[in-house]
Amino acid sequence: MTSRAAIDFYFEFSSPYGYIASQLAEDFEKRVGRQLSWRPFLLGPVFKITGQPPLVEIPMKGEYSKRDFLRSARMHHVPYKHPAKFPIGTVAALRAFYWVTDSDPARARKLAKALYKAFFVDDIDISAPATVIEIARGVGVDAAGLAAALEDPAVKERAKKEVDSAIAANVFGSPFFIVDGEPFWGVDRMPMMEQWIKTGGW
Amino acid sequence: MTSRAAIDFYFEFSSPYGYIASQLAEDFEKRVGRQLSWRPFLLGPVFKITGQPPLVEIPMKGEYSKRDFLRSARMHHVPYKHPAKFPIGTVAALRAFYWVTDSDPARARKLAKALYKAFFVDDIDISAPATVIEIARGVGVDAAGLAAALEDPAVKERAKKEVDSAIAANVFGSPFFIVDGEPFWGVDRMPMMEQWIKTGGW
Repeated sequence: MTSRAAIDFYFEFSSPYGYIASQLAEDFEKRVGRQLSWRPFLLGPVFKITGQPPLVEIPMKGEYSKRDFLRSARMHHVPYKHPAKFPIGTVAALRAFYWVTDSDPARARKLAKALYKAFFVDDIDISAPATVIEIARGVGVDAAGLAAALEDPAVKERAKKEVDSAIAANVFGSPFFIVDGEPFWGVDRMPMMEQWIKTGGW
Repeated sequence: MTSRAAIDFYFEFSSPYGYIASQLAEDFEKRVGRQLSWRPFLLGPVFKITGQPPLVEIPMKGEYSKRDFLRSARMHHVPYKHPAKFPIGTVAALRAFYWVTDSDPARARKLAKALYKAFFVDDIDISAPATVIEIARGVGVDAAGLAAALEDPAVKERAKKEVDSAIAANVFGSPFFIVDGEPFWGVDRMPMMEQWIKTGGW
């Protein structure tokens, strides 16, 4: 390992593979001895650039994916229930995450995990701000403060800049990792990334 | 292992990941104790259905892919030189493969490997029938017979049926494997497939 800088971990709250990656994140950090910097973004603006529809809407690939979400979760021993409404908009979750992380990054990570659990385990549609606020309250976030923040143009702009920044870094899918400038797309590339980090690349 | 039936190995001759998979195929067969049935097809008709452009033409994803072809090949210790002209049409290669395999499956596999080597190692554009015929001659195929076959409507129909059959099996990318009805897409899913076969699935 030549560097101890954090590894960027980009994910979208409506992404099954992002959720699975989030469940593997802490063991991964321990094994490679480096931290992940959690950076949620939105796939919607990315898909406008890449011209891609949501994965499950692509003919043939969509059916495969729905099967693979379940299979991948089982393989990694991650609880998973495919949400009844999918995909959903996650801008409220995104804004909440960045508002919390600016004062308390550890709590923001807890919030991300709680949001993912609500959506991918308990089948709760997390698109509405009120739902995000309730989930945030459950991990100790000031609910009134968050409710105000979700209406704050500065908070909206803060979140938008993160999405722009992900796009500027060529992040086109979820999960997406960048370690020392090297990009890795997909939960199924985490083993390759681990090998890359441990060997210094090839 | 509950079955010894062959595993369908679908690939397109212009696919870098298909090429890498072909290089890993024999070791894979030994490890899992089952044969791969090599089944080239064409991605062009598939992309018409899925609405996808060729991978390298997708914004953001294309650049990532070009980097990943090289990185994946190096990881697997597979020689790789990205072709100057890419992607290319591979219908002549496809027809040649199926014409040969009907009389000599082992030679067809040799032909597939020779075609892949020409394209992804020696940077020879294998789209023209004359080039395919020369490469086939190099692995002991009757060149005059093949030249006639490539013009034969029955041979064209034979190859087309294979593409239709791949599409009917929901094969939307290369490489693509189907083992006992379970589909696996991508060279990076070969470890998952191996685990699936060895454990009987999960």
